Amino acid sequence: RKRILITGGAGFVGSHLADKLMMDGHEVTVVDNFFTGRKRNVEHWIGHENFELINHDVVEPLYIEVDQIYHLASPASPPNYMYNPIKTLKTNTIGTLNMLGLAKRVGARLLLASTSEVYGDPEVHPQREDYWGHVNPIGPRACYDEGKRVAETMCYAYMKQEGVEVRVARIFNTFGPRMHMNDGRVVSNFILQALQGESLTVYGSGSQTRSFQYVSDLVNGLVVLMNNNVSSPVNVGNPEEHTILEFAKLIRGLVGSKSDILSLPEAQDDPQRRNPDIRKAKMMLGWEPVVPLEEGLNKTIDYFRKELEYQA
Amino acid sequence: RKRILITGGAGFVGSHLADKLMMDGHEVTVVDNFFTGRKRNVEHWIGHENFELINHDVVEPLYIEVDQIYHLASPASPPNYMYNPIKTLKTNTIGTLNMLGLAKRVGARLLLASTSEVYGDPEVHPQREDYWGHVNPIGPRACYDEGKRVAETMCYAYMKQEGVEVRVARIFNTFGPRMHMNDGRVVSNFILQALQGESLTVYGSGSQTRSFQYVSDLVNGLVVLMNNNVSSPVNVGNPEEHTILEFAKLIRGLVGSKSDILSLPEAQDDPQRRNPDIRKAKMMLGWEPVVPLEEGLNKTIDYFRKELEYQA
Ligand SMILES: NC(=O)c1ccc[n+]([C@@H]2O[C@H](COP(=O)([O-])OP(=O)(O)OC[C@H]3O[C@@H](n4cnc5c(N)ncnc54)[C@H](O)[C@@H]3O)[C@@H](O)[C@H]2O)c1
Ligand SMILES: NC(=O)c1ccc[n+]([C@@H]2O[C@H](COP(=O)([O-])OP(=O)(O)OC[C@H]3O[C@@H](n4cnc5c(N)ncnc54)[C@H](O)[C@@H]3O)[C@@H](O)[C@H]2O)c1
Ligand SMILES: O=c1ccn([C@@H]2O[C@H](COP(=O)(O)OP(=O)(O)O)[C@@H](O)[C@H]2O)c(=O)[nH]1
Ligand SMILES: O=c1ccn([C@@H]2O[C@H](COP(=O)(O)OP(=O)(O)O)[C@@H](O)[C@H]2O)c(=O)[nH]1
Ligand SMILES: O=c1ccn([C@@H]2O[C@H](COP(=O)(O)OP(=O)(O)O)[C@@H](O)[C@H]2O)c(=O)[nH]1
Ligand SMILES: O=c1ccn([C@@H]2O[C@H](COP(=O)(O)OP(=O)(O)O)[C@@H](O)[C@H]2O)c(=O)[nH]1
Repeated sequence: RKRILITGGAGFVGSHLADKLMMDGHEVTVVDNFFTGRKRNVEHWIGHENFELINHDVVEPLYIEVDQIYHLASPASPPNYMYNPIKTLKTNTIGTLNMLGLAKRVGARLLLASTSEVYGDPEVHPQREDYWGHVNPIGPRACYDEGKRVAETMCYAYMKQEGVEVRVARIFNTFGPRMHMNDGRVVSNFILQALQGESLTVYGSGSQTRSFQYVSDLVNGLVVLMNNNVSSPVNVGNPEEHTILEFAKLIRGLVGSKSDILSLPEAQDDPQRRNPDIRKAKMMLGWEPVVPLEEGLNKTIDYFRKELEYQA
Repeated sequence: RKRILITGGAGFVGSHLADKLMMDGHEVTVVDNFFTGRKRNVEHWIGHENFELINHDVVEPLYIEVDQIYHLASPASPPNYMYNPIKTLKTNTIGTLNMLGLAKRVGARLLLASTSEVYGDPEVHPQREDYWGHVNPIGPRACYDEGKRVAETMCYAYMKQEGVEVRVARIFNTFGPRMHMNDGRVVSNFILQALQGESLTVYGSGSQTRSFQYVSDLVNGLVVLMNNNVSSPVNVGNPEEHTILEFAKLIRGLVGSKSDILSLPEAQDDPQRRNPDIRKAKMMLGWEPVVPLEEGLNKTIDYFRKELEYQA
């Protein structure tokens, strides 16, 4: 039984992680400023003796006593991180320094939720962990991409210089219940559009690809990584690659909708492919995703249906 | 006549910039924590009514009133920035945020001293400003390379979001009097070795190239850029490319030394070529370097001779 801090624990991924760690019997502290997260995602734990929720911004120092830190606090979707690029940069730089300073002081292990975006618009496929990436340092996505890159750099600086134990998960696109319905990402857009009988909006040709993992696979991967001895970055994603057009058709089919598919202009700096090489996670952690895409999508569609009913 | 702040103004480049701005009649405030800089570099101005020297670390907030900020504070050579990677990261992230916050509050224009290292180990030659770079985010140089990349990202975030006027100079290797004698960089190493009759140490094959600009060319470039209307990044360097072996032979000849040339193992992540494309600076700023290499080297050798005498 460990004392575990989850920053960004009221968000999509963080709240599922809190569920798992609580079920495993740990003491869980969630720190969140509720920028994109919400109390509702963790409200079923409020009042539980092992659970604490702190309304706090990681850009400010935090003094608590813990054994492990899952550092997830950061806006994650393009509309959210571009909404206030300065804040995104402060969260990923000062926020990460604060959590590393905390880890150093209390001797905790820190896992950084990094991202496949550190590879930018990759020129090799699939992406292996030793690929240096192809990132525009001054483009519209840079506040997130460069923020996460330097957050990784900070982790290894604290590891080498101060002996802080770090883990770096490079997370690839993830979906599931509690994902943001209105953040403009592809899965949520398509599900919403299909459920509401609107056209499914495909940006660009639709031939760009993504690989989506279901959130329970990701959460298992994060916990396995945290409790293993691999300190170098590890891709955590589902290597099954689909074009955006395929997603549109699949989701429309699962929802049973008659929406048509609308072709819109390409997004700026939009990566054309993204696909994890997960051999490292398989070999060194014994982890790989197990939830079939359709099963995950069905659970997510259910969640969206209920949310729409709740809102109405 | 302007009120001008130079962070890192007691360093090599900053002190020459202070000289020029003082000669031009401005009010100059130098802020420095004397990590690699020293009072001696600016002591000829101490007591002048237009000059102020503040012992301050840019990682802490700074409240002064100025019109322009040349933000140079950062360790610059590999041994210096690798000495304390965490501090290098804090200086480039928190330090840059502080100076941008200052610029925002007082409406000052900020010029960031960025670096050719944002291109990393480049895969295209020469490097143009629209090249995204080839940087290892977790390598030994990352604290500097990624720190400067995200510092650039921060500048454009403050520009777009807060209307701060920014200038970004991507500075290529520079040499001249007041450069650090013992920082292990190639020009200083070779001059010292030649003057002291020791072997000139060439790392790797010696066929890797660099392009060196003389410090007065750089300082003129920075001032022209600051007072122009180009807000996107501009390379400031000398495109004349030489192999490291050529430098060894040239410096040995100019010193008139009989040192031999010693081949040592290659440095980790050592860029194999670096060469600025300066067409943008030429066309948009009317700037280009004018000091011939031998002339600059002779002035630098003179400086090193006097420093060695002074120390003895
Ligand atoms: N979901 C994905 O597909 C994906 C992919 C790659 C990486 N990631 C990373 O995983 C992490 C979680 O992402 P998510 O999808 O759950 O996003 P999310 O937006 O649902 O969760 C992020 C949480 O962090 C909180 N937060 C943001 N800034 C904060 C600050 N300054 N202080 C305290 N809390 C703050 C938000 O309120 C939110 O609860 C992020 O770091 C993200 O970069 C997610
Ligand atoms: N010299 C080059 O070839 C070169 C090339 C590319 C970029 N640059 C950039 O130009 C700038 C100046 O470089 P330089 O060659 O004069 O190096 P330098 O080491 O002589 O000067 C840097 C100055 O910044 C000061 N400083 C460092 N951290 C500080 C902090 N936290 N607070 C306040 N002051 C701090 C140092 O004490 C020093 O006086 C740096 O930003 C460097 O990255 C230099
Ligand atoms: O328990 C702690 C310890 C440190 N910090 C923050 O972490 C940062 C980085 O820590 P570090 O020890 O590197 O910084 P230092 O205190 O040496 O500047 C500090 O600025 C603190 O704000 C924190 O939030 N909680
Ligand atoms: O309504 C949408 C939303 C997204 N996309 C595309 O789907 C892909 C994934 O976009 P998302 O924003 O979900 O994530 P990211 O680009 O960060 O992988 C990109 O190619 C988008 O251009 C799309 O075609 N329609
Ligand atoms: O005159 C100033 C104004 C701001 N800052 C610093 O600059 C940072 C970034 O400024 P910004 O206005 O973005 O930050 P905010 O105060 O909104 O957090 C702040 O944290 C301050 O520490 C400073 O050093 N001098
Ligand atoms: O005594 C030395 C110092 C440096 N170098 C080489 O000279 C080049 C420039 O190195 P420096 O550290 O001066 O600058 P940077 O690598 O940042 O351009 C690199 O290829 C180094 O490996 C060398 O051969 N001998």
